[in-house]
Amino acid sequence: MKSDYVAPEGSGAAMHGLIRDLYPVCRSITGKGFRDSLRRLSELVPISLTEVPTGTAVFDWTVPREWNISDAWIADSSGRRVVDFRNCNLHVVSYSIPVRARMSLVALRPHLHTLPEKPDVIPYRTSYYTEDWGFCLSDRTLQEMPDGEYEVCIDSTLAPGHLTYGECILPGATTDEILISVHSCHPSLANDNLSGMAVGAFLARHLATKQLKHTFRFLFIPGTIGSITWLAGHEAEARRIRHGLVLSCLGDRGPSTYKRSRRGTALVDRAAAHVLRLAGAHTLLDFVPYGYDERQYCSPGFNLPVGCLTRTPNGRFPEYHTSDDNLDFITAESLADSLTKVLAVVEILEHDRSCINLNPKCEPQLGRRGMYRNTGGASPADFEMGLLWVLNMSDGRHSLLDISERAAMPFATIRRAADTLQGASLLRVLDNDPLYHTPGDTSSSPTGVSRSPRRARRRNR
Amino acid sequence: MKSDYVAPEGSGAAMHGLIRDLYPVCRSITGKGFRDSLRRLSELVPISLTEVPTGTAVFDWTVPREWNISDAWIADSSGRRVVDFRNCNLHVVSYSIPVRARMSLVALRPHLHTLPEKPDVIPYRTSYYTEDWGFCLSDRTLQEMPDGEYEVCIDSTLAPGHLTYGECILPGATTDEILISVHSCHPSLANDNLSGMAVGAFLARHLATKQLKHTFRFLFIPGTIGSITWLAGHEAEARRIRHGLVLSCLGDRGPSTYKRSRRGTALVDRAAAHVLRLAGAHTLLDFVPYGYDERQYCSPGFNLPVGCLTRTPNGRFPEYHTSDDNLDFITAESLADSLTKVLAVVEILEHDRSCINLNPKCEPQLGRRGMYRNTGGASPADFEMGLLWVLNMSDGRHSLLDISERAAMPFATIRRAADTLQGASLLRVLDNDPLYHTPGDTSSSPTGVSRSPRRARRRNR
Amino acid sequence: MKSDYVAPEGSGAAMHGLIRDLYPVCRSITGKGFRDSLRRLSELVPISLTEVPTGTAVFDWTVPREWNISDAWIADSSGRRVVDFRNCNLHVVSYSIPVRARMSLVALRPHLHTLPEKPDVIPYRTSYYTEDWGFCLSDRTLQEMPDGEYEVCIDSTLAPGHLTYGECILPGATTDEILISVHSCHPSLANDNLSGMAVGAFLARHLATKQLKHTFRFLFIPGTIGSITWLAGHEAEARRIRHGLVLSCLGDRGPSTYKRSRRGTALVDRAAAHVLRLAGAHTLLDFVPYGYDERQYCSPGFNLPVGCLTRTPNGRFPEYHTSDDNLDFITAESLADSLTKVLAVVEILEHDRSCINLNPKCEPQLGRRGMYRNTGGASPADFEMGLLWVLNMSDGRHSLLDISERAAMPFATIRRAADTLQGASLLRVLDNDPLYHTPGDTSSSPTGVSRSPRRARRRNR
Repeated sequence: MKSDYVAPEGSGAAMHGLIRDLYPVCRSITGKGFRDSLRRLSELVPISLTEVPTGTAVFDWTVPREWNISDAWIADSSGRRVVDFRNCNLHVVSYSIPVRARMSLVALRPHLHTLPEKPDVIPYRTSYYTEDWGFCLSDRTLQEMPDGEYEVCIDSTLAPGHLTYGECILPGATTDEILISVHSCHPSLANDNLSGMAVGAFLARHLATKQLKHTFRFLFIPGTIGSITWLAGHEAEARRIRHGLVLSCLGDRGPSTYKRSRRGTALVDRAAAHVLRLAGAHTLLDFVPYGYDERQYCSPGFNLPVGCLTRTPNGRFPEYHTSDDNLDFITAESLADSLTKVLAVVEILEHDRSCINLNPKCEPQLGRRGMYRNTGGASPADFEMGLLWVLNMSDGRHSLLDISERAAMPFATIRRAADTLQGASLLRVLDNDPLYHTPGDTSSSPTGVSRSPRRARRRNR
Repeated sequence: MKSDYVAPEGSGAAMHGLIRDLYPVCRSITGKGFRDSLRRLSELVPISLTEVPTGTAVFDWTVPREWNISDAWIADSSGRRVVDFRNCNLHVVSYSIPVRARMSLVALRPHLHTLPEKPDVIPYRTSYYTEDWGFCLSDRTLQEMPDGEYEVCIDSTLAPGHLTYGECILPGATTDEILISVHSCHPSLANDNLSGMAVGAFLARHLATKQLKHTFRFLFIPGTIGSITWLAGHEAEARRIRHGLVLSCLGDRGPSTYKRSRRGTALVDRAAAHVLRLAGAHTLLDFVPYGYDERQYCSPGFNLPVGCLTRTPNGRFPEYHTSDDNLDFITAESLADSLTKVLAVVEILEHDRSCINLNPKCEPQLGRRGMYRNTGGASPADFEMGLLWVLNMSDGRHSLLDISERAAMPFATIRRAADTLQGASLLRVLDNDPLYHTPGDTSSSPTGVSRSPRRARRRNR
Repeated sequence: MKSDYVAPEGSGAAMHGLIRDLYPVCRSITGKGFRDSLRRLSELVPISLTEVPTGTAVFDWTVPREWNISDAWIADSSGRRVVDFRNCNLHVVSYSIPVRARMSLVALRPHLHTLPEKPDVIPYRTSYYTEDWGFCLSDRTLQEMPDGEYEVCIDSTLAPGHLTYGECILPGATTDEILISVHSCHPSLANDNLSGMAVGAFLARHLATKQLKHTFRFLFIPGTIGSITWLAGHEAEARRIRHGLVLSCLGDRGPSTYKRSRRGTALVDRAAAHVLRLAGAHTLLDFVPYGYDERQYCSPGFNLPVGCLTRTPNGRFPEYHTSDDNLDFITAESLADSLTKVLAVVEILEHDRSCINLNPKCEPQLGRRGMYRNTGGASPADFEMGLLWVLNMSDGRHSLLDISERAAMPFATIRRAADTLQGASLLRVLDNDPLYHTPGDTSSSPTGVSRSPRRARRRNR
């Protein structure tokens, strides 16, 4: 029996195609490129866009002015564009103020960013919160620029406007939420984070077809300021987040990496570790207060159980934040594998539960129920071991994930064993498991009045 | 000073001799072979046999019909026995129903079990709970059987009768019990589990000569159904089991293995780990719900502190459950070493205690008591280190096993150091150590009425 | 910004010079050599000497008679001194009773101690608590001694007198104490423990110039009997010891070693482990009840949080307790490095504190406060990471050492980050941190009556 939490056939290629579409767009933390990108994602799943006005106070920060850009270049004395935004949108420092000037190379030099140790590569630089302007270019280009006068143009606007973010909400049986957060503000960088945007959108599309226990909230936001803005406006909603994942860098050829939430032992931390351990080579990292938006979700005032799933993490691959993070750097295989791993984590978050063995004294005779081979002497099959594990550990103190970890068996197998044992009346879900006993469960409610899952949960605690 | 918990001289050879006697007997989970084997063990220690009628309900199971067999064979068209139970009792699938028929190889084939990957070896197969019949044979024999007609005979009976188990009880100063459980239902398989039967019987014989603190209960039972039957009839007794060991596969040449109880940190788990760690190469395994009768003792409704001591565990040696598990596969040395290790574990279970240092402020001056070398400058001897460890850690929160673990020194040395310090009035056993203060300790009982240790224990908790 | 807890320039050479001065003195657990050595240390820091009379009962022990020696030798029949105390004070077994006799080598032999496996080396032996006499010599010398008569002289006195110990107290803002204990009773042995005496004295001199939070107590004592004597007379003071270190063997070329206190997780244990881990090669040892005076401080009746810092520990270097533990065996570099490490531990003990992030929801915008680089895209610097760590973990449940451990960053960096954030009003010290809120903090005391820090501390717990 195949798990229903697996990336659909062809999704790797489809995600790569989506990324190819979005790659040329010049995104930043505000502006048209960001909005256009989210509209493209909306073709896959319904995403509602929220516009937050410039100047809005969000905790210690302020929503910045909106930035848009139509062109930028450096031309030499002959008028030839030696650096041209139309070739690569990394060429302009993001949030550069408009400039139109003629200046010497000496005067221009402090505004030019290169990576001398990688002479052919264009770096990615930003100046969101300090008024400045600049160009990023390959060091080789810089070395070839003769002294003399240059014409410099950045045709940008930095003006009151809005910060945009996108939300896709998939309602579940309860109002307990699972957060999937994806920063969507980087320009032509494929792994960081068009890969996360693609996996996030395809995940939403896959889950939209299912009966969900949790309500899923997908956030497509600008990095840092986006999560701060969302949290500042949604403190009540944030308290409903039971589990969360930041998705980023999911397309490169490296092994998967999971960075734990600040809590370190949250269910999502254990679920991701379990999935990665059984899948082969991987890395598990403890939380550090640097990285992506988990920095904000895991700030001590929120301390949400939000981890971060990547392949090679930020700053650990040489192509990071350079023009080498391009369409060749990511593969359809890695994207599909990442999606499958996220789905396996989601399966655990959705279906973990604590059960109680209804025949706890000695093993039940599985053989006469057709659940165990009848000729003795050889070793049991995987599924039989799954049955034995679930029976032995279902004392009300171990969840199916506990059992999967202890047995070092896939959660999907253990879940299937539990389903089989429930079907044979050898197992039942613990009464106080909130996800399994809230909606429509009026057996213990004498009045039969329907209760909101939220209230039921509170009472059960 | 030599420990009094060591296998007596010559016990390895004696155990090997016992196994040689028992090897040819065709045991199963019921029947004459099982009874005869226990009677042979009764020559070493008093074992009482209990007979449980067929059809008795034992938890989710039912005591099966009794199986006996006198002969079985497959004869070719010339009348020659190509498979003959008289040569090897593994040839018949245990619990085969009686058969007398003439049939083609094609019809016979589904009833023949071989191991194609080990062409000269006869597998061991059973069909206790499904009515069936069959033969086990070497794949080479099968390959040499020409197509054609065969005469097949299994001269067995499967009829209402009894399930038999043996008990040997060694009374101790308290009714707290130590359980030693040995499955005794396998036919001609030397390591699994004639080795366990021999070590169990010799252990009982050795302990029968001692003043015991715990009451020891040895169970010689058929696997699975035996422990289920015993537990179903002895729930009160089961609650008195403080520590337990399943003994199996103790004769092969591999290093010792201890599989922890479901609890994982029970005293027996720590004692066995301590003994094995100091003895050299070994393996420690966490509990898994597959193996021997610890499956039943450790089912969640009982959750008894029962581990399993083996050398190479079930299923981990290629000879397992085949005709290669024969008398050559086991050695007297391994049997003696296993017995010594079980005794070392038993020493800990019997003699662990928490003491209190009566001179807790700074070290006492051991030198003037003749307990410490008088010329300073060189390092202390092992026994002196034992004295220092016991003094330093005997604050009432550490038992002698805690100290042995921390010091990485044999329990026997630490016990001897504690005895010496008690003799010098520098140490006393903690008041509430139940095994040391129950029988005859009426000091705190104003009426002087003798109390059962059991009640005393409860009061002390 | 350089830490102010670093060994001052030139201190390695200065310590080596001090050791050179003290090396020839014949120290023992009592007597003139011990007193003279402490007087030499008094030139660096004020040390008060206490004299405890012979016969004083100290727990299970008695202060022994005072031992002094002026000369000792073995002369051959020609009158030549073949063993001469004036050449090396290790030649006499410490605490030898006076002897003047003529005897054969056969009669003398039981009084001669050598190390046959190191024929050129003189061992160090003592007989403090058993009346005896003896000589230590190289095995080569012994082998060259012909049979025949020898003149033997030990010109010692063993008579009622005093045991001496030295104390240097540096008062701090609280009466909570940090104990630095140094055994000072060994004769010409450079590493064990002239190195500890030198590092201890220079540490005291360095700390004497600082505003201290804790009161520091330095003990220069004879081994074993000294700490027992001090503890017997200072049980109330002992209860004020919050942290402690025994200093020994700090001059050899080996990597640093820290032996944990009996508690194992005391602040000093964690501080020393943190310092050593970041400093490179090192060894961490769990407490064992053998070694130096930590044996007494960590006896169960005291159980003080006192660890032991060495380079190569006692008994682990071949030169240990032999004439090879000489001035060439220790280096100025090792002494300076040891002093720096002790200072780094002391910095933690003095400055660890728990803070609370005053902007706990999302990160504060450090950039606009000039605390964070303004151009984004590259990785943060160490100090920026320090700021992020302090902000993220300062939820009142993590101290600066907790944060340093988690971040694997030097405590000094984390402390500086916390100071910076406190300066920016983004962080404050937790109200109930006793070392930061006791003296003069009358805000919560309505009567304004000044309280002793001691009482305040108790109330806060």
